[in-house]
Amino acid sequence: MEKKSNKVKPSILSGFMELLPREQILFNRMLETIKRTYELFGFIPLDTPAIEKAEILLAKAGGETEKQIYRLKKGDADLALRFDLTVPLARYVAQYYPELAFPFKRYHIAKVYRGERPQKGRFREFYQCDIDIIGDCDLDLANDAEIPSVIYEVFRRLGFSNFTIRLNNRKILNGFFASLGIGEKAVDIMRAVDKLEKIGQREVEKELLGLEIPESTIKKLLSFISIRGGVKDSLASLKKLEIKNELFLQGVSELEKVVEMVSMFGVPKENFAIDLTIARGLDYYTGTVYETILNDYPGIGSVCSGGRYDNLAENYTDKKLPGVGISIGLTRLFPQLLEAGIIKPSSGTIVRVMVVPLTDKIEKAIEIASALREKGIPTAIYLEEVKPAKIFKYADRIGVPFIAIIGDDEIKENVVSLKNMETKEQKKLSLEEVYDMVA
Amino acid sequence: MEKKSNKVKPSILSGFMELLPREQILFNRMLETIKRTYELFGFIPLDTPAIEKAEILLAKAGGETEKQIYRLKKGDADLALRFDLTVPLARYVAQYYPELAFPFKRYHIAKVYRGERPQKGRFREFYQCDIDIIGDCDLDLANDAEIPSVIYEVFRRLGFSNFTIRLNNRKILNGFFASLGIGEKAVDIMRAVDKLEKIGQREVEKELLGLEIPESTIKKLLSFISIRGGVKDSLASLKKLEIKNELFLQGVSELEKVVEMVSMFGVPKENFAIDLTIARGLDYYTGTVYETILNDYPGIGSVCSGGRYDNLAENYTDKKLPGVGISIGLTRLFPQLLEAGIIKPSSGTIVRVMVVPLTDKIEKAIEIASALREKGIPTAIYLEEVKPAKIFKYADRIGVPFIAIIGDDEIKENVVSLKNMETKEQKKLSLEEVYDMVA
Repeated sequence: MEKKSNKVKPSILSGFMELLPREQILFNRMLETIKRTYELFGFIPLDTPAIEKAEILLAKAGGETEKQIYRLKKGDADLALRFDLTVPLARYVAQYYPELAFPFKRYHIAKVYRGERPQKGRFREFYQCDIDIIGDCDLDLANDAEIPSVIYEVFRRLGFSNFTIRLNNRKILNGFFASLGIGEKAVDIMRAVDKLEKIGQREVEKELLGLEIPESTIKKLLSFISIRGGVKDSLASLKKLEIKNELFLQGVSELEKVVEMVSMFGVPKENFAIDLTIARGLDYYTGTVYETILNDYPGIGSVCSGGRYDNLAENYTDKKLPGVGISIGLTRLFPQLLEAGIIKPSSGTIVRVMVVPLTDKIEKAIEIASALREKGIPTAIYLEEVKPAKIFKYADRIGVPFIAIIGDDEIKENVVSLKNMETKEQKKLSLEEVYDMVA
Repeated sequence: MEKKSNKVKPSILSGFMELLPREQILFNRMLETIKRTYELFGFIPLDTPAIEKAEILLAKAGGETEKQIYRLKKGDADLALRFDLTVPLARYVAQYYPELAFPFKRYHIAKVYRGERPQKGRFREFYQCDIDIIGDCDLDLANDAEIPSVIYEVFRRLGFSNFTIRLNNRKILNGFFASLGIGEKAVDIMRAVDKLEKIGQREVEKELLGLEIPESTIKKLLSFISIRGGVKDSLASLKKLEIKNELFLQGVSELEKVVEMVSMFGVPKENFAIDLTIARGLDYYTGTVYETILNDYPGIGSVCSGGRYDNLAENYTDKKLPGVGISIGLTRLFPQLLEAGIIKPSSGTIVRVMVVPLTDKIEKAIEIASALREKGIPTAIYLEEVKPAKIFKYADRIGVPFIAIIGDDEIKENVVSLKNMETKEQKKLSLEEVYDMVA
């Protein structure tokens, strides 16, 4: 009589990303590169709970956030999962203000949660890789110029070269809107303008009409945001508009200084540009804003965005804490890079060598493995029953580049038979030679 | 007229750990050491969603787990936060079985969630640092012996020397219980025995009486689990009991082989021992079990535990997938190590050098910083208005060991004034000399 199986079908929730080992290794390498670069620029690590009080995360509630947030009760407590890393940062600096040194430069690489409708490229759990520089009362504009140099270095180290960091300043937009007499609608207008690349000019026009903006004003608006050309030309075009609005002029002056310093910070001319269409949907940005486009894959959208905000933690403290920061959403980016063939999961395993003891005596295998590990070489020992065909298949599947075989002969001769799994070449080598080969 | 403040008080939930920067840096270094060591032994990284279907996580429901689990609804979906990394691993290997190569060796370092009553050292969100080796049908006993060598290497690299990895085998316990005719109560007995160190012999006796075990049997039980002495003596004592139960004999034989191999795997004699009181509370262990004790701080309890299980994924698949693994609960361990003074948060920041441009011209500062970064030295540039006293205070607070000052003189002479923040010594140096000093 057969017992009825009552197994639970193994599966994960839709909208959640999970990777197979080779993809995971690649993903982690990219995370590591981002982390390492952030640290090189002097950002220190931070970690905050993924669950916080709902009143904290929803202090500045608003439409989408409240709808998308994962909320839960435990006893009487009203909890929620963080939906970004900026709100927890704001809470953190407000909470520990007396114990922190400002400018406070931190990076935070962690998962955040948004119950969005699952669709291609949108995940409900995703990594954000954030850096922010928070000042106490003031924060020099030079920080706005250093940020693009971090973006540049991250993407360079990730292996990209043809990308553009687009810069704008919200004061230019806000000042321009004010000069047109539509200042109080600035936030809504910027939300619409921000979609230009995604939905096209006609749809943006429709949205603007929906905001009851006169057609003549919309025309001015669209001709303004279509200012193109190099950094110098763009700035010249902006000045030629002869707008007297103070905020506008301040924005132009800030943008001019920032782009000048961005060069000083070592970002090549071809890797940054002024783009007046960039507004960033979020309404807390108040100055410089950034987007980053892979020029060969504009469809992926911005791969790194952020900006300057006047007052990070206003929901939690009276302290004025201006800051500037960016975020890389690696979980969204990763499958698109894979699909476009820009990155490849076949780049291998972390294991460099698998030591295979052919005899019962595993001491020699352990000795070799320990010696390689002492030198920093990730090394596995094959400890199962030895069936050569099976071992080679296994080595191929996990993608290990070298197998070190140790049989009676090798023990006698005090050598290792090292097989290169790519070239299929096999050689008897001393431990030193093995190290030179696999390092 | 003053506006009424309606700030939300910045705070986190009780039972959640959050660290200040210096502690966080130390915590991350420890995580990094654990990760690096796991990789050196050939474990590959895995990452799974923190949220899973409740039916998956509760497939093998049971008392505490169901009470402690964070459960939430989103739309119609019944979700929960993972409470360990083993259940997600079981689900993962069952789900992707055809695409994985076995033995499947993975590490997973991530947060898990348990709504326990908050108390000292118990956190509701905590990191687990797990490794497991999963076989397909079979998994050689040698793997049980390799695991202690990983534990040894991790704690050695974390800076510990006086610790003992305690080994036992559940078959010995189960066989012994069967020989006493109390086999069907084995799980409950082991749960009670497992608490010996925590609650003392008398309380354990009470619990055993509560299980309706005859007093004479309890006596035998307690004299059995108090077998002490070196590895050889313990094995000899076990054999002297002359118990004929087959499972018992198999357990003794396994334990004997494992401890013999543990030596071969390079674990010094003083760092492991047999301890028959170790049962591990979880009932899925079926063979070797481990605990690790810091001998100078036995009160901390086991800092690394685990064991062998016959059938990892039986709730999700018919495949027989035996495995062996361990877990380090770093979040619980960390504050205890701090409190005992075993680790110290003052060990610094990740930033090695802060470059301070005294002039308006920041190019030279950027040049120095870029050169140091290219050599892998984490370097920050001080970009705020220069007030020397403030800068030194800032440098002290963030704990940066070196400040590189660049003024007009330094630019003229093509040098850097490097100040050692500890010795307060300041010297004019070339870039090469700076590098040698700070590397």
